[in-house]
Amino acid sequence: MATPQLKLNSGFDMPQVGFGLWKVDNATCADTVYNAIKVGYRLFDGACDYGNEKEAGEGVARAIKDGLVKREELFLVSKLWNSFHDAEQVEPIAKKQLADWGIDYFDLYIVHFPVALKYVAPEVRYPPGWNYEGDDVVLSNATIQETWQAMEGLVGKGYAKSIGISNFQGALILDLLRYAKIRPATLQIEHHPYLVQPTLLQLAESEGIKVTGYSSFGPQSFIELGWDKAKDTPVLFEHPVVTALAEKYKKEPAQILLRWATQRGLAVIPKSNNESRLKQNLEVTTFDMEADELKSISGLDRHLRFNNPTDYLGTLHIFA
Amino acid sequence: MATPQLKLNSGFDMPQVGFGLWKVDNATCADTVYNAIKVGYRLFDGACDYGNEKEAGEGVARAIKDGLVKREELFLVSKLWNSFHDAEQVEPIAKKQLADWGIDYFDLYIVHFPVALKYVAPEVRYPPGWNYEGDDVVLSNATIQETWQAMEGLVGKGYAKSIGISNFQGALILDLLRYAKIRPATLQIEHHPYLVQPTLLQLAESEGIKVTGYSSFGPQSFIELGWDKAKDTPVLFEHPVVTALAEKYKKEPAQILLRWATQRGLAVIPKSNNESRLKQNLEVTTFDMEADELKSISGLDRHLRFNNPTDYLGTLHIFA
Repeated sequence: MATPQLKLNSGFDMPQVGFGLWKVDNATCADTVYNAIKVGYRLFDGACDYGNEKEAGEGVARAIKDGLVKREELFLVSKLWNSFHDAEQVEPIAKKQLADWGIDYFDLYIVHFPVALKYVAPEVRYPPGWNYEGDDVVLSNATIQETWQAMEGLVGKGYAKSIGISNFQGALILDLLRYAKIRPATLQIEHHPYLVQPTLLQLAESEGIKVTGYSSFGPQSFIELGWDKAKDTPVLFEHPVVTALAEKYKKEPAQILLRWATQRGLAVIPKSNNESRLKQNLEVTTFDMEADELKSISGLDRHLRFNNPTDYLGTLHIFA
Repeated sequence: MATPQLKLNSGFDMPQVGFGLWKVDNATCADTVYNAIKVGYRLFDGACDYGNEKEAGEGVARAIKDGLVKREELFLVSKLWNSFHDAEQVEPIAKKQLADWGIDYFDLYIVHFPVALKYVAPEVRYPPGWNYEGDDVVLSNATIQETWQAMEGLVGKGYAKSIGISNFQGALILDLLRYAKIRPATLQIEHHPYLVQPTLLQLAESEGIKVTGYSSFGPQSFIELGWDKAKDTPVLFEHPVVTALAEKYKKEPAQILLRWATQRGLAVIPKSNNESRLKQNLEVTTFDMEADELKSISGLDRHLRFNNPTDYLGTLHIFA
């Protein structure tokens, strides 16, 4: 069963279902990636900030060496961290990340947040995280325009086939489109039934930008982090709207959530360490729910965002 | 009774309660402004788009001529319309607006929306509105940075004492602050108990930007426009949370809503054609509600925005 592809405005195809590397342990990451390739995953969504790009690259290298897949059959995604927004830092860090992966281009390289932080040299701390020193969040004055122009430079030099954005919204996206010589191919956003964002999807569609949803299971990813907001929110896997559809279609609740997203036209990037769930997550484009069923899931919207710097840093109110 | 002043980051004081000129009829505008000055209003919030700047200026001129007030005692606000975002259009249109008012500087000049539309010459149509021709919304590629730099030029030339923004949010504001040589003194936003926006207020406060709330009565302003979203929403003047507080404090529901906003630190710009209500609206800093009462009003939040181009144009998803 082949994963459907989304045609990007850059001309490239992107698998609609991929594997997200956030919170994949360094110790197991290489094996996880290798096994995911074996199961059929072709897209891996990484980032400087996830701190596991070397290990992900090892998994990829082993899979290629073992003949499971060729590089050109993979769609490897990484992201520019906030501390590298200054124009002169973009290419060096992208090259470091490519070296970590052991590859010579990313299929997609994404501005992780519309946040510019003061540069931290990789020798000092890598990945640098949100804080400059101690609890201090120190900003850089690099504008999004400056950063985007440097991102465009990566395409020019062949380090990235496509470039995209993440955690951007509304008028900021419209502003970027005014100066972009290369338009973002994708927009990656938090997206689940508690955060449905119909207008943002409309914006992306009208501008020819494909959307990738992260945290497709809602609070799930954040319970592990011990966040109160997540603990106090009903688990989506047990929500009656979701379980009723799971029963009807003889699917897992996770598959219902991923299918809801993919039927809305999004790409998804779930992760799992469990082989049978790995397969299940990949097989979420093999059944179709009815329009009113999709609507009933969208009806769970609570405008509830988990990945919000306001909550975990008390500043950088990018979603305000 | 003197209206409290908010100290702006530009060094100037802005009255916390003013008079909003949106939807004030051309026929009555001069008299309305004159009477409002008589009652004690000192801030008038106008805009190119309201189409009544000449008439507002007539009311001001008459009040000055009759010795009710001096120019320097007034705080006159206007806004740059979307069609004039191209750098070379900002100064000419600001000068035209000043000429319409019959004054030589604005106390505050605001970017009305983070939307850049194709230029329409005043001789062709004024105010130009949202559509270029017929129903067509035609964009300009003027970036917010380009427009803001031209706004800063107005301060340099003395055409505006302070400059501000309106209908901007989160990461776009943070981006503007990266390149602003003159920071926005104020942010004007839709603000009422159905759209409480705590994080946006936090952002503004942490950046030293004062917030002016418009549409303080929520759906009220939009019912007159016949908008379904407004008609389908319970009127705030009759909401039991509001009426109970009105009874307790022996105030009008409108005063409760304005006091809730001013106790949150915002400036407000209600309008009224009725003299006793004009006075009442101005007297909304003379009583204090308790913290838990303010909280009970904030608890009515529905994330419900009325002034959204998505709804009335089907495009320009600036709030997505």
